[in-house]
Amino acid sequence: MKFCSACAAPVILKVPAEDTRERFVCTRCETIHYQNPNMVVGTLPIWNLQGETKVLLCKRAIEPRYGYWTLPAGFMENQETCRQAAQRETIEEAGANIQLHELYSVLSVPHVDQVHLFYRATLIDTNYLAGTESLEVALFAEHEIPWEEIAFPTVSQTLKFFFEDLKNVRSGGHFQLHEHDFYKSHRPD
Amino acid sequence: MKFCSACAAPVILKVPAEDTRERFVCTRCETIHYQNPNMVVGTLPIWNLQGETKVLLCKRAIEPRYGYWTLPAGFMENQETCRQAAQRETIEEAGANIQLHELYSVLSVPHVDQVHLFYRATLIDTNYLAGTESLEVALFAEHEIPWEEIAFPTVSQTLKFFFEDLKNVRSGGHFQLHEHDFYKSHRPD
Repeated sequence: MKFCSACAAPVILKVPAEDTRERFVCTRCETIHYQNPNMVVGTLPIWNLQGETKVLLCKRAIEPRYGYWTLPAGFMENQETCRQAAQRETIEEAGANIQLHELYSVLSVPHVDQVHLFYRATLIDTNYLAGTESLEVALFAEHEIPWEEIAFPTVSQTLKFFFEDLKNVRSGGHFQLHEHDFYKSHRPD
Repeated sequence: MKFCSACAAPVILKVPAEDTRERFVCTRCETIHYQNPNMVVGTLPIWNLQGETKVLLCKRAIEPRYGYWTLPAGFMENQETCRQAAQRETIEEAGANIQLHELYSVLSVPHVDQVHLFYRATLIDTNYLAGTESLEVALFAEHEIPWEEIAFPTVSQTLKFFFEDLKNVRSGGHFQLHEHDFYKSHRPD
């Protein structure tokens, strides 16, 4: 940010009165331009096939991480709820008809100023279709997941939480919300 | 937004190529200025006194809703995690030493482009003290809560979830995550 979006004068970084952090402040109209984390919201859609639970992944057709696999997710838009964002991104990226379940993971990624939310979901049918931001969409059982080709640590971690919980659920347990923080040094295993 | 923060030329609202929504786009450098929801993160701090569970509320010293009561909460900052934001806001607004527990409510407020998160917390001591954004900080049992003077519907709702769950917890149940969406027509009861 170099210029004020309200009046076009140059901005400077300074700590405003009664604040504790540097903000971009307009040198003419004194508007303070706050910058805050963005939310990335998506789903973990599953399909049960011949006794096996498969998850739907999308191969990214855009940067960053072009060609890597991800869960359907994207930036939450103004004027929508978290659940609406999750459903919209799943349709846009995977063309998937889902039943949306509960919030499953809340993942802070402070070094990129993001919070990622994933909801559990069940596919209603297998008429999914790669959207413009996906090269390919496919179902993977746990042993089929291309762990080395997962786009983001938050996606790997959510998949790991899921398959771990799934074992407990099969012996009578429940899925539970997972919170996890990711720092810059964190790399997918 | 009237001007481009990168080059100071005027922006116009238009749907960029391969997008479906209107964005502010620079008429000169063509930078797309995305606008996304903000996260408000806080806590529901409790203190058990003579068999009664009390919650810590702050009387707002700032607009909007000056003079109304709220849970300690505020805008999440870049470079921090959700849990760090919750803890920081509780210290800034209420000067309260807390033990932070699990995420308790996730509340979308699409008409103001916000998502509110509240964590359960327990006060470590009662040395709380109103910060610069609070007129007063005090403990309230359920029957003492000034329901008509609560600042925001997300706060009223989180308090209601809590006292309802508390009855279940006392008979062997557990606290659970609550998700709820608020629309413009929603008013506190």
